[in-house]
Amino acid sequence: MNMILLSGGSGKRLWPLSNDVRSKQFIRLFKDADGNYESMLHRVYNQIMTVNPDANVTIATSATQVSAIHNQLGEDVSICVEPCRRDTFPAIMLAAAYLHDELGAGADEAVTVCPVDPYVDNAYYEAVNRLEELVNRGTANLTLMGIEPTVPSKKYGYIIPESREPVSSVKEFKEKPDREAAKLYISRGALWNAGVFSFRLGYLMEKAHSMIDFTDYRDLYARYGTLEKISFDYAVVEKEPSIQVMRYAGEWKDVGSWNMMSEVMADRTKGNVTLDETCVNVNAVNELDIPILVMGCKDMVVAASTDGILVADKERSGQMKPYVEAIRTDVHFAEKSYGTYTVIDAQPGSLTIKNTMKAGHRMSYHFHELKDEVWTIVSGTGKTIVDGMEQTVRPGDVVTIAAGCRHMIIAETDLSLIEIQIGTELSLKDKIMCDL
Amino acid sequence: MNMILLSGGSGKRLWPLSNDVRSKQFIRLFKDADGNYESMLHRVYNQIMTVNPDANVTIATSATQVSAIHNQLGEDVSICVEPCRRDTFPAIMLAAAYLHDELGAGADEAVTVCPVDPYVDNAYYEAVNRLEELVNRGTANLTLMGIEPTVPSKKYGYIIPESREPVSSVKEFKEKPDREAAKLYISRGALWNAGVFSFRLGYLMEKAHSMIDFTDYRDLYARYGTLEKISFDYAVVEKEPSIQVMRYAGEWKDVGSWNMMSEVMADRTKGNVTLDETCVNVNAVNELDIPILVMGCKDMVVAASTDGILVADKERSGQMKPYVEAIRTDVHFAEKSYGTYTVIDAQPGSLTIKNTMKAGHRMSYHFHELKDEVWTIVSGTGKTIVDGMEQTVRPGDVVTIAAGCRHMIIAETDLSLIEIQIGTELSLKDKIMCDL
Repeated sequence: MNMILLSGGSGKRLWPLSNDVRSKQFIRLFKDADGNYESMLHRVYNQIMTVNPDANVTIATSATQVSAIHNQLGEDVSICVEPCRRDTFPAIMLAAAYLHDELGAGADEAVTVCPVDPYVDNAYYEAVNRLEELVNRGTANLTLMGIEPTVPSKKYGYIIPESREPVSSVKEFKEKPDREAAKLYISRGALWNAGVFSFRLGYLMEKAHSMIDFTDYRDLYARYGTLEKISFDYAVVEKEPSIQVMRYAGEWKDVGSWNMMSEVMADRTKGNVTLDETCVNVNAVNELDIPILVMGCKDMVVAASTDGILVADKERSGQMKPYVEAIRTDVHFAEKSYGTYTVIDAQPGSLTIKNTMKAGHRMSYHFHELKDEVWTIVSGTGKTIVDGMEQTVRPGDVVTIAAGCRHMIIAETDLSLIEIQIGTELSLKDKIMCDL
Repeated sequence: MNMILLSGGSGKRLWPLSNDVRSKQFIRLFKDADGNYESMLHRVYNQIMTVNPDANVTIATSATQVSAIHNQLGEDVSICVEPCRRDTFPAIMLAAAYLHDELGAGADEAVTVCPVDPYVDNAYYEAVNRLEELVNRGTANLTLMGIEPTVPSKKYGYIIPESREPVSSVKEFKEKPDREAAKLYISRGALWNAGVFSFRLGYLMEKAHSMIDFTDYRDLYARYGTLEKISFDYAVVEKEPSIQVMRYAGEWKDVGSWNMMSEVMADRTKGNVTLDETCVNVNAVNELDIPILVMGCKDMVVAASTDGILVADKERSGQMKPYVEAIRTDVHFAEKSYGTYTVIDAQPGSLTIKNTMKAGHRMSYHFHELKDEVWTIVSGTGKTIVDGMEQTVRPGDVVTIAAGCRHMIIAETDLSLIEIQIGTELSLKDKIMCDL
């Protein structure tokens, strides 16, 4: 089975733990079987591979997420990178072309598109696997999975089936109705649209070529920036007369708010947090290394990272978006392929950054045009290359890197370094890659 | 008038803004006439000097507070430093000896001891000034100021006067009674003990010499560590038969909890804080440079510094002490005579510190035995002296200081530097002063 896992979004719905470069699927609040923290991405990927060890999973994502995905899933995972952000139609087209032209998947093979962020159990992916059989029967061009609603929610799209059979053709779609309409739809057997679609790869390639002028994956990649921003639902699903839906009645949670996250996170608190015994229904996540003390609070979420601190009534936290958009949103934390990047001090003219690196990993060889850097190794050992000169470094060693000077570091052991950037313009974009 | 301002305490009642070296009187949450933030110390000192520009104020304090006092009140303020912590009796004795033997105050002069932390208006210090006249009449050995109670509080000591006259001799003292007893005392005209005492300097010097074997201030200073820890109330007041009390009915608040502080702080929030419009009776203070967003909260205080983050129901915050004592209490922020010291990253084997320095100020010349340091100047200009060698420094300059190497820096303009300490033992005590 071919699967395209859509890892999108730069949402702020789980701010301050999610930001422009860390989508919610990278936040580690779940736990694996060994009790280690894992992210939604990790959880979903593991569930898929547990249920179907032969699944061919390709993650469709944007360039900003590639480092975090490698950090969490390793270097071997298959990733189809959008050169810039478009909507789900271009992203799925690009991934389909990648499967077909780069990975050699056949036109008759089934492909299933899944979002990366539902909170479900393994039974969900067993159901996803059955979509392949439905596709192979050829009774419809598109096969969807619909979730049996538990409440008349206004947050989801509804699929109205022709019948209440386990698999039915689809009559129509209704986007985010009001509560009364949702009740009516549910009474008629409607299902939540979980964003899971299956189809023959050939079906989608024909669609793609009929709608976009391109020869193959590389050509599509090259012209990606010229593509219209349009969703897969709008471009394909709503126009397709031959769609069937399979009902799914198991647990399904959309972890799109702190209120929902607090229901499913592994522990009531994570990090250096003390809740006094008068706290009721409080969840707290602390990524800072300073302690948080919560006393006498009820129905609240507290979340802290170097990007900000949220203190909110759980219900109210769902209304966070305009407030977060109004406050400063410099990215102060990012997962890199080599480890983590955390801004620990920001002043006009300087940034101080703590970089942690995993043993065996390296930063890319690059230089900056407008900023000088000072690296001080504070733990571990490694090797720096500065303008071609190699040097072994250990705690206390200082490397000064003037603007224009090419540099990189390779961690021999786990390594931590404090990087001080000096300059009047300190943009993440001032980074020019070069060859060793 | 001679005044001894007792600046004691290393309390955690306003944690995380107060810590072992920053007592609550140094926190800047009030505002002066020009709208600039000021601390309790600053406010009280200004009130005293406004009401009585000729007041001879000496601040009795411990060595850990000297830098912060100079930072806030300048270098010229008179300070009597306890070489180690004893209780209020030794502290007041030392300050009295300092006035007598170092500043030349006469035995017949009146001295008034005041705490540094009441929240009052200028009328309070006008009343304090009148204590001098009462002392000069010679009708009692000790003259106290008592506050008219507004509620039968269990938090304060009560003074029971002989009569309800504006000035009355004192019948007895009652320490922190239960509510019923407090009501009874109040019905009999009792007053709260505000910790304000006046006396002839000679009276106290006689007491001191009768109870402690010493010749003069310097001798007392030298043997200070051998003195018994004992409060002034216990050692002097409770044993003195000749005491009078003056009633004071103006505003008086003991800012000893976040609940009380939130009533008197100048603004509802300070620092980078957003309260959404559904917050009710919420105060928030943010000393971090990352944003805080508070949503849907009621009757709460949020306070954040590099020492920690408090999120508490206001009433409940009064019970903070055991929780704060149980969590890590490394000092991550301190006011220094030159500016501020803020730990921005702590790892095993390293500390990263942001030092801000005011123009014209300097660090003392010193060295460390067990740690190496790397200084990177990130703003401003200054001059470093390292093992006697002078160097002008500006942003981007790096100074590496191996253990044993003497060093200091003088800020020519306002200056900011990132200091990275490397070593297996990183104690504040590893600091050996030396002469230039």
